[in-house]
Amino acid sequence: MSYFSNISAIKYEGPKSTSDLAFKYYNPEEVVGGKTMEETLRFGVAYWHTFTYDGGDPFGAGNMERSWDRFSGMDLAKARLEASFEFYEKLNVPFFCFHDVDVAPEGQSLAETNKNLDEIINMMEKYMATSKTKLLWNTANMFSNPRFVHGAATSPNADVFAYSAAKVKKGLEVAKRLGAENYVFWGGREGYETLLNTNMKLEQDNLGKFLNMAVDYAKEIGYEGQFLIEPKPKEPTKHQYDFDVATGIGFLRTYGLENKFKFNIEANHATLAGHTFEHELHTARINGMLGSVDANQGDTLLGWDTDEFPTDLYTNTLAMYEILKNGGLGKGGLNFDAKVRRGSFEQDDLFYAHIAGMDSFAVGLKVAHKLLEDGVLENFVDNRYSSYNEGIGKQIVDGTVGFKELEEYALGLGEVKNSSGRTEKLKMIINQYILNVIAE
Amino acid sequence: MSYFSNISAIKYEGPKSTSDLAFKYYNPEEVVGGKTMEETLRFGVAYWHTFTYDGGDPFGAGNMERSWDRFSGMDLAKARLEASFEFYEKLNVPFFCFHDVDVAPEGQSLAETNKNLDEIINMMEKYMATSKTKLLWNTANMFSNPRFVHGAATSPNADVFAYSAAKVKKGLEVAKRLGAENYVFWGGREGYETLLNTNMKLEQDNLGKFLNMAVDYAKEIGYEGQFLIEPKPKEPTKHQYDFDVATGIGFLRTYGLENKFKFNIEANHATLAGHTFEHELHTARINGMLGSVDANQGDTLLGWDTDEFPTDLYTNTLAMYEILKNGGLGKGGLNFDAKVRRGSFEQDDLFYAHIAGMDSFAVGLKVAHKLLEDGVLENFVDNRYSSYNEGIGKQIVDGTVGFKELEEYALGLGEVKNSSGRTEKLKMIINQYILNVIAE
Amino acid sequence: MSYFSNISAIKYEGPKSTSDLAFKYYNPEEVVGGKTMEETLRFGVAYWHTFTYDGGDPFGAGNMERSWDRFSGMDLAKARLEASFEFYEKLNVPFFCFHDVDVAPEGQSLAETNKNLDEIINMMEKYMATSKTKLLWNTANMFSNPRFVHGAATSPNADVFAYSAAKVKKGLEVAKRLGAENYVFWGGREGYETLLNTNMKLEQDNLGKFLNMAVDYAKEIGYEGQFLIEPKPKEPTKHQYDFDVATGIGFLRTYGLENKFKFNIEANHATLAGHTFEHELHTARINGMLGSVDANQGDTLLGWDTDEFPTDLYTNTLAMYEILKNGGLGKGGLNFDAKVRRGSFEQDDLFYAHIAGMDSFAVGLKVAHKLLEDGVLENFVDNRYSSYNEGIGKQIVDGTVGFKELEEYALGLGEVKNSSGRTEKLKMIINQYILNVIAE
Amino acid sequence: MSYFSNISAIKYEGPKSTSDLAFKYYNPEEVVGGKTMEETLRFGVAYWHTFTYDGGDPFGAGNMERSWDRFSGMDLAKARLEASFEFYEKLNVPFFCFHDVDVAPEGQSLAETNKNLDEIINMMEKYMATSKTKLLWNTANMFSNPRFVHGAATSPNADVFAYSAAKVKKGLEVAKRLGAENYVFWGGREGYETLLNTNMKLEQDNLGKFLNMAVDYAKEIGYEGQFLIEPKPKEPTKHQYDFDVATGIGFLRTYGLENKFKFNIEANHATLAGHTFEHELHTARINGMLGSVDANQGDTLLGWDTDEFPTDLYTNTLAMYEILKNGGLGKGGLNFDAKVRRGSFEQDDLFYAHIAGMDSFAVGLKVAHKLLEDGVLENFVDNRYSSYNEGIGKQIVDGTVGFKELEEYALGLGEVKNSSGRTEKLKMIINQYILNVIAE
Repeated sequence: MSYFSNISAIKYEGPKSTSDLAFKYYNPEEVVGGKTMEETLRFGVAYWHTFTYDGGDPFGAGNMERSWDRFSGMDLAKARLEASFEFYEKLNVPFFCFHDVDVAPEGQSLAETNKNLDEIINMMEKYMATSKTKLLWNTANMFSNPRFVHGAATSPNADVFAYSAAKVKKGLEVAKRLGAENYVFWGGREGYETLLNTNMKLEQDNLGKFLNMAVDYAKEIGYEGQFLIEPKPKEPTKHQYDFDVATGIGFLRTYGLENKFKFNIEANHATLAGHTFEHELHTARINGMLGSVDANQGDTLLGWDTDEFPTDLYTNTLAMYEILKNGGLGKGGLNFDAKVRRGSFEQDDLFYAHIAGMDSFAVGLKVAHKLLEDGVLENFVDNRYSSYNEGIGKQIVDGTVGFKELEEYALGLGEVKNSSGRTEKLKMIINQYILNVIAE
Repeated sequence: MSYFSNISAIKYEGPKSTSDLAFKYYNPEEVVGGKTMEETLRFGVAYWHTFTYDGGDPFGAGNMERSWDRFSGMDLAKARLEASFEFYEKLNVPFFCFHDVDVAPEGQSLAETNKNLDEIINMMEKYMATSKTKLLWNTANMFSNPRFVHGAATSPNADVFAYSAAKVKKGLEVAKRLGAENYVFWGGREGYETLLNTNMKLEQDNLGKFLNMAVDYAKEIGYEGQFLIEPKPKEPTKHQYDFDVATGIGFLRTYGLENKFKFNIEANHATLAGHTFEHELHTARINGMLGSVDANQGDTLLGWDTDEFPTDLYTNTLAMYEILKNGGLGKGGLNFDAKVRRGSFEQDDLFYAHIAGMDSFAVGLKVAHKLLEDGVLENFVDNRYSSYNEGIGKQIVDGTVGFKELEEYALGLGEVKNSSGRTEKLKMIINQYILNVIAE
Repeated sequence: MSYFSNISAIKYEGPKSTSDLAFKYYNPEEVVGGKTMEETLRFGVAYWHTFTYDGGDPFGAGNMERSWDRFSGMDLAKARLEASFEFYEKLNVPFFCFHDVDVAPEGQSLAETNKNLDEIINMMEKYMATSKTKLLWNTANMFSNPRFVHGAATSPNADVFAYSAAKVKKGLEVAKRLGAENYVFWGGREGYETLLNTNMKLEQDNLGKFLNMAVDYAKEIGYEGQFLIEPKPKEPTKHQYDFDVATGIGFLRTYGLENKFKFNIEANHATLAGHTFEHELHTARINGMLGSVDANQGDTLLGWDTDEFPTDLYTNTLAMYEILKNGGLGKGGLNFDAKVRRGSFEQDDLFYAHIAGMDSFAVGLKVAHKLLEDGVLENFVDNRYSSYNEGIGKQIVDGTVGFKELEEYALGLGEVKNSSGRTEKLKMIINQYILNVIAE
Repeated sequence: MSYFSNISAIKYEGPKSTSDLAFKYYNPEEVVGGKTMEETLRFGVAYWHTFTYDGGDPFGAGNMERSWDRFSGMDLAKARLEASFEFYEKLNVPFFCFHDVDVAPEGQSLAETNKNLDEIINMMEKYMATSKTKLLWNTANMFSNPRFVHGAATSPNADVFAYSAAKVKKGLEVAKRLGAENYVFWGGREGYETLLNTNMKLEQDNLGKFLNMAVDYAKEIGYEGQFLIEPKPKEPTKHQYDFDVATGIGFLRTYGLENKFKFNIEANHATLAGHTFEHELHTARINGMLGSVDANQGDTLLGWDTDEFPTDLYTNTLAMYEILKNGGLGKGGLNFDAKVRRGSFEQDDLFYAHIAGMDSFAVGLKVAHKLLEDGVLENFVDNRYSSYNEGIGKQIVDGTVGFKELEEYALGLGEVKNSSGRTEKLKMIINQYILNVIAE
């Protein structure tokens, strides 16, 4: 049976296409910088937003029109799974991602929950055997069930810690079985509501222990996917321990985990933390920790996680710039952790939205590639810092001078001469590259 | 001569006092928890806001009425210094803090600038010889002069790095000579305006080198004050590398500096980073890095550093709670990095504002001490985490279990039972302690 | 039967009480400024947060432990109603507030929904006949059901407008029947997600028409309660038309409604709009439009509506100051539009939280009354503006001079002399009044 | 003499140009929708940011390299004026804007200040006689001088009100003499620092009187330019009375000024108020009050007025969309109220920045025109609201039904059927139009 019977496979038709249901910029086979778009972009569909999310928000009930909603219970889970692979195929995406509870309903006990999950994973394995679409990452949802009200690995209740361990253990086994390229930790409620009732030191120590246990168990079962931390500063908690990439780096170093984890960076989480998306990618990259991306966008005039589909060409260009400078994402990918607006409740909107995101990132890739190919930013930057390539600058970098030598040098300086940073000119260059990318 | 001839020494007169120019809550000799208020609070006056700031803002010219403004050049510098010690004495504060350029004007060359500074430091040393007021910390201003337009230690210009080194070298010599308890690094423009023109990796590496050079030079000259990093997320730069305490911890660990530095935490910088003041203090404290405090407050409905005098009793109570749990501030203190509002341009406002800040922190100290003495929060927290004191919780903390043992335990659990976090009740308790503190 | 069998009636026990389940500051019979606390404060319980809210948030399922949750459907609605009157009585609150769907489940059709509602309203009327607790206001929920996805009176779909009209018509009939003192309009989704698909002019015109129809219908049925607009800037929509009080004033004047409506002002909505709570109250007051209050508080470091119980003594003091200057709230009251944190899921937290809010507002009332009695702010303000009481200032106020006369006057002025605004001193005075309020 | 001797006149060279000092998209003579770009865009240069601003910020001294800075006093004022007309000519802009104090230094008295101003205005008049560049608007700076510390027309000091009246009287005379198309009121400090010391009602009444006096005086002297209010929510004050357009509408209606004033809308002020730029333009437009534009952009991750040059193609497109729907700006224009970043301190940056802004708005114009020509958004919106063109919808719009008729209609409805708002699809359409605009 078909869940999207009105939709044919989405094809690349080029920028002149007048079809709403075609790619205009994303051509999976087009080679940009030695790799096909599909190889570089590694798009993934987020199971929860696309197949599980019902449109509910804090002020309204679910309203999404979904062809699988005539089912319930395990039948609904199976219908969703069937629909998901039809969706991947029609959209021609190479990856998907899920939390345990997205794909299978929780049972009355942990054992029953695991049984439900096993049944779905069995089905999933079969679908994957004949599909090109692979698992970018899976994870355990440890924030929705009431038992996680005060956190999971950072819960004040040791039973919850144990329960969480069991969930991640199972998740790692699923990851190994399905060949997940990564396993993600987003600490949904790993934080606090108020310091008045919180032992932050114990909570963070416990989180450190938990992650170390996960590393140990993965080793034990031979799971070799990449472990990823996903920073978010707040929401649902008042304060979340994985605030941003820089905070994550400090945390991982404190608990000896800096070589075991990379980051899964979400655009909307970046802006909630007061950063641009490219800042977070850049910070992870120069620390060798850029792992994967949750490709979405927020609304900087709103204070919550809107998880919009990423259509901003500036942001996507600068994101792809970081990714290309990183030599690509390795095992990571661009997972659309994005949901259609509540007002976009028709099923076709799922296609429009993914096409919008994929086309936008394809443009970003092409612009970023051209910027790098021309060296237009790189050359400017190299020249700007050229004083560190020789003389006193080189000595500073080489560590062969200290304050005394530098003071002596400074006393001999006439007036220091700086150069303009040329922000406005560089911004116009970005505009030109975007405007020219299709024209060429 | 007197610069504040209309003001007598400010005395403690108790809560019933109707005088505007008296302490109502700050009694320097009152013993709270085994130490006098003066010993615990270690108040400091910020030279720049109190003696140098002229009231200018981005939309208006200087407007402060100051009795020393009839002077100019080095005479003005000397008059300010004279006024400052009269102020400390009348306010009875034990500490002050300054940047180099606050106290002495820059000359035409680095040599002349140093000469000006030496002349003022000589005078300062004499005043200090007969004053109870000591130097909490000094620092070098490396953000106001145009040469620092692109940063100091993170400038793309190696000459600026060298110049900065010379400034800090001088600053450390001054610190040693005057017995400064701390030396502070606030990276005023150590950050970026746009990533488009920035080599963040080189800039951060250079900053790491710079701080290591400072450590080396202090050792060389035998300066034993505490080194402090002062986090701020933004302003004047778009992004500042020392975003917050957590970021600073990561940075210090990356460059092997984690045992050499503590943090100087400013309330207004905390809120600009999206944190409460107590969060930043707490984070530093549990990492053993709470060094000193810039005592002010911001306006969370405004997006810039307002540097208001700290009158919020909630914030000051929770700040003192962290400080008391830290066993005090050690070499650090409470520096009023706060300026009177531009509308409070009369000279008397300097006294009103400092009295407001000192009285408010004295209340905070008393409330925090009482909370700790009664154990009202501590006991709640201890009980909340008690499951980690025995059984599976203790095994988790002790590191004697892994995912397999925890899964086995979790499978045997019935329903997990959590307890309320009691946020509302705890907030009311804070209210009661504040309302009762004077009544008792 | 009892739904709160472990709780006895909450009594005033005074500040020294060590009971968690007693009022320490709210003494309903205490006379402050000629009225009892109960008469001035006019507290109301919000049905939705206290009896209907299940603890769900965007990242988690419902988790509240409620004694009535063993029921379902209309039985649940009846159990909630029974519980609610037990709660009002034990808390001794004079008012409650509800949306239609809080109290009765929606049916398969509008007719069935109305039938369900009638059945509950019948019961409610009986409870009210023997209870001191009255209805502060009711309203129609026109944002939760999927049909309101694009708004109600501002929906692009005329059928939705009609449906909304039917809902408010019913609501007005209920208000008349139960003697509701007010009828509230909060435009939950009256706004837009994106301008790209929006005809704002038509939507606002329709909203204007809708409110005029409501006024007409109330007149027709003889309902004489006060109509209230409740401003909120955003959430759930990207932009909400009733952004804040000032926006509302413009809107009401544009549609000729300025004499028919007052404002129901919510603290958390104020801060989301970038204002203090007191600013919104003040703006409404000086325009003669302060109607009622949704008493809660937000977290200014978070960007969404947290609807916390109002414990901040500063905010509550300044709110009561505005209310006392308004001569009280007339038909309005202080409705606790506040929910216990998700972590405060035990039933007793409902009592702790309301006690915290009521005690905090009682303190606010006493402090505000004392400030006004002493004239400490009023006198300062009067003196500050005294130049408008005579001479050129009086001529300006009287409208007897124009630019020419003023230029002539200004040319004859020497230097203009201003006075300090004394912000810091005034803030300390607020502290002193708070700290002294119980001591006295 | 020349102040920009290294710069030749900036010409349109088309998108393929490799010159940094050429227009690539702004072709003043190109006809778009029946008017030349120059006629529609009506660009203006802001005197203060381009010729007066020295690069100072709250943490740093002036650093801009300007060829006229070898002069001082009135000579500097004259040199700036001379430089300004060279700049206008080389950039080929049709308009400029200024505050009184931007162009002439203040004297020791009001009379002397006016004398200085007259001398410069005489010169300016001569330059204008032979230049194509006209005065878009002038205004009086009533926020920089210390006398305006507490506001101008809203000062608590009647002398300041009088002084302000004299300044605006002079400004109107200058406007008439130079043929200014508009006169702008930006209430730099017309607001409050704290409500504790503020009589908001008197202040707003006085502001209303002041604006009415201005209207009267303009009539008296026969000045027929358009009066404009420029909203800004905060900065430098804590709260500014002209918060946003909606607030301004309420204010103007309250004081009977709604037919005398339109709005000068600044992009960065919009975002500080929590709105998009297009929202503010749209709100003014549908109320018939869109007058002129301060074309800049802010950084929504920063909380202050950054006044950046407007390079964002999305924002500029949506702004031009509103302007085209408004039938153009009438007497208004696009004034670059934008400053080069402090790091862009070289003089050439002034050209780069203006070219970036002008090119970006030219693209915006072309994209917006094409969107309108194709009706791609208009048709979607018309269709979305089509239910108001007939049946019950038309009756609602025509005002021929009330709640009773609507209830009857609603009771007869089956399930209400809504349609998707298609946000994601519409966003992708904007992308396509931007990407195609040059390609075509």
